[in-house]
Amino acid sequence: MGIPSYAERMEHVSGSAVREILKLTQQPDMISFGGGLPSADSFPMEDLNTIINNLTENMTASMLQYGETEGYRPLREEVAKFMATKGVHTTADHVLITSGSQQGLDLVAKAFINKGDKIVVESPTYLAALQTFKMYQASFIEAPVDEEGVIPEELDCILRTEANVKLVYMIPSFQNPSGRTISAERRKALMQVIQKYDVVLIEDAPYEDLKYTDAQYPSMKSMDTTGQVLYFGSFSKTVAPGFRVGYSIAEEPILSKMIIGKQSCDLHVSIFSQMVMAEYLKRGLMPGHLKQINAEYANKRDLMLKTLDETMPKAVTWTHPEGGLFLWVELPEHMSTNNLFMKALEKKVAYVAGDSFYAAGEPHNAMRINFSNATSENIVRGVRALADVIRENM
Amino acid sequence: MGIPSYAERMEHVSGSAVREILKLTQQPDMISFGGGLPSADSFPMEDLNTIINNLTENMTASMLQYGETEGYRPLREEVAKFMATKGVHTTADHVLITSGSQQGLDLVAKAFINKGDKIVVESPTYLAALQTFKMYQASFIEAPVDEEGVIPEELDCILRTEANVKLVYMIPSFQNPSGRTISAERRKALMQVIQKYDVVLIEDAPYEDLKYTDAQYPSMKSMDTTGQVLYFGSFSKTVAPGFRVGYSIAEEPILSKMIIGKQSCDLHVSIFSQMVMAEYLKRGLMPGHLKQINAEYANKRDLMLKTLDETMPKAVTWTHPEGGLFLWVELPEHMSTNNLFMKALEKKVAYVAGDSFYAAGEPHNAMRINFSNATSENIVRGVRALADVIRENM
Repeated sequence: MGIPSYAERMEHVSGSAVREILKLTQQPDMISFGGGLPSADSFPMEDLNTIINNLTENMTASMLQYGETEGYRPLREEVAKFMATKGVHTTADHVLITSGSQQGLDLVAKAFINKGDKIVVESPTYLAALQTFKMYQASFIEAPVDEEGVIPEELDCILRTEANVKLVYMIPSFQNPSGRTISAERRKALMQVIQKYDVVLIEDAPYEDLKYTDAQYPSMKSMDTTGQVLYFGSFSKTVAPGFRVGYSIAEEPILSKMIIGKQSCDLHVSIFSQMVMAEYLKRGLMPGHLKQINAEYANKRDLMLKTLDETMPKAVTWTHPEGGLFLWVELPEHMSTNNLFMKALEKKVAYVAGDSFYAAGEPHNAMRINFSNATSENIVRGVRALADVIRENM
Repeated sequence: MGIPSYAERMEHVSGSAVREILKLTQQPDMISFGGGLPSADSFPMEDLNTIINNLTENMTASMLQYGETEGYRPLREEVAKFMATKGVHTTADHVLITSGSQQGLDLVAKAFINKGDKIVVESPTYLAALQTFKMYQASFIEAPVDEEGVIPEELDCILRTEANVKLVYMIPSFQNPSGRTISAERRKALMQVIQKYDVVLIEDAPYEDLKYTDAQYPSMKSMDTTGQVLYFGSFSKTVAPGFRVGYSIAEEPILSKMIIGKQSCDLHVSIFSQMVMAEYLKRGLMPGHLKQINAEYANKRDLMLKTLDETMPKAVTWTHPEGGLFLWVELPEHMSTNNLFMKALEKKVAYVAGDSFYAAGEPHNAMRINFSNATSENIVRGVRALADVIRENM
């Protein structure tokens, strides 16, 4: 005989479009605006080298042994200090080290979501969050947004009228995929709405430190007086994704539930990875490094915006993000970025089609393009190729 | 307002007893037979040092960048070669690198288990497997065992008569917690039973390489002609748990389902951890290292058995495992190892109470003790203290 039937949760889930594109685009001559990869030039290779060598010089058995699920204590302390520099006052006891911030999404869904429970998401939103939440058979409600982000009155209406809404998921700063940032005033208004209901706000902030503006945006977590905000951070976009180190800032009792969930997933994050990140923070390397990569990424963003201006047909529009890694491009409504995709690949340029980022699968005329990973030369060549594909198919 | 209600799956799950004990027993004067920790002396520190230094000397951006969910290709290849030395002939394409073999348990449950679906487990079995499966609201059926392991006729009866059995979970070699090994003949008979039904056999084999006997036990996976066996291996017990690198050997289409599950959990295992393990295998260090730690662990097992012989009251019995990390000790039926636990802690010795290892919570008169982590001196002192506690409370 053979294999039994799969679980119901697997029925509506396919592999991540982005992860599959990542494979396709590993062809050496492909210009990929598809992934959300940091620039290879952005990694602080020399500092990481020094740190790793110092760690191995003083290697002890505890570096190799099992550790606590919550995370390596010195890293939890450093994360708490780092958060304080961003206006979030917490302690090591409220920090859970996760395998990238992605794991936080899995753990919070595991803790709260029964089949059919509802999650309010921005429209559009991060596709791998949708995928993770779908694994828990969540239902989605798309919150209407404008240029300043989710509209507080609309969120209030949703939370007032819909039953079984457990989570509200937002990427307030330099959102994936739209590049949109929720304004400071709007953040306060949204927090007031959240505090009226029994609901957890997930503040997913992997791009928060990639900021190319002097404008200040207080994190939602800094306004959390009721323990309803769960903050997810990551070193993947700032230091290096390969180590898979992220963190959740959470209050009790949510934190304990997430720890129980993590115990049954993978026990804990690689100690070595955690020690490298702890040491990186402890040496005070982050501020200088962020300054450097933010200058580099701002240049790339500017170059991509300039090239779009120079090459795109009039009917095409795009966002002007103040940070992060992505632009959101909208084609005329009759066009489908899915239909265009293979034609773009023929011209050796890749993107992610917009419909992947919608809980309900719309709109077909948008695409997400990444400006951090490609070289300057390839940004120009890739955008030109993309403009050609769009023009030829209008 | 505050926090919404938790998911139903969290209701019957508490933190892992062993993980909590791990914390208690981090007091410096405590002798812990509780965890399943490898000996600190067993880590191949010098070789790992050399490998890490060589890796950093030749550091490239790809070591720090996002990688494929399936795992780092050279490690997948090395794992396939390593499996061949154990009679399992597979290819890199069938290897999924996981965050410890623990993650395999999460991913297979995610792929198959709907609420109420049944999993056949050995009685007793690995408690963190029970915990993981409970998160998916599985029901358990305990398979009757004798000295040779699960009884094939009993398994056949279960699979013939019970509906919705999706998985059969076994640790065929040097089982956790019992130390029991399924005989070679029994393995063949069990495989024949499995192949009669639509069911997946999970062969969890983290202890397989910790073998203190010349007896040969073919892995169940080596007899898998129908793609029904999922093999879980780990470097945690042999090289170092801190890196969190394990692997699943799986056939399609199970493998693809697990990869989709892993994408939404954590994207992939730390590349650096994977590179270290790939290099460790590539340099051919494993056979010599296993020889060395197995000699050391066999000595510790022998010392623990000898001390039990010398100190324990007559009514106490224990297993004589041919490998692995654990002995299973049974006290007279009227005694409760849970009741004894705090008294043991007072005498500075810890174990795991037997009921944690039963899906249905019995028997109360057993305990699991670990012989790998304590020093020889502490094995003697700890077993003596344990014998005193038992004698004083008989």
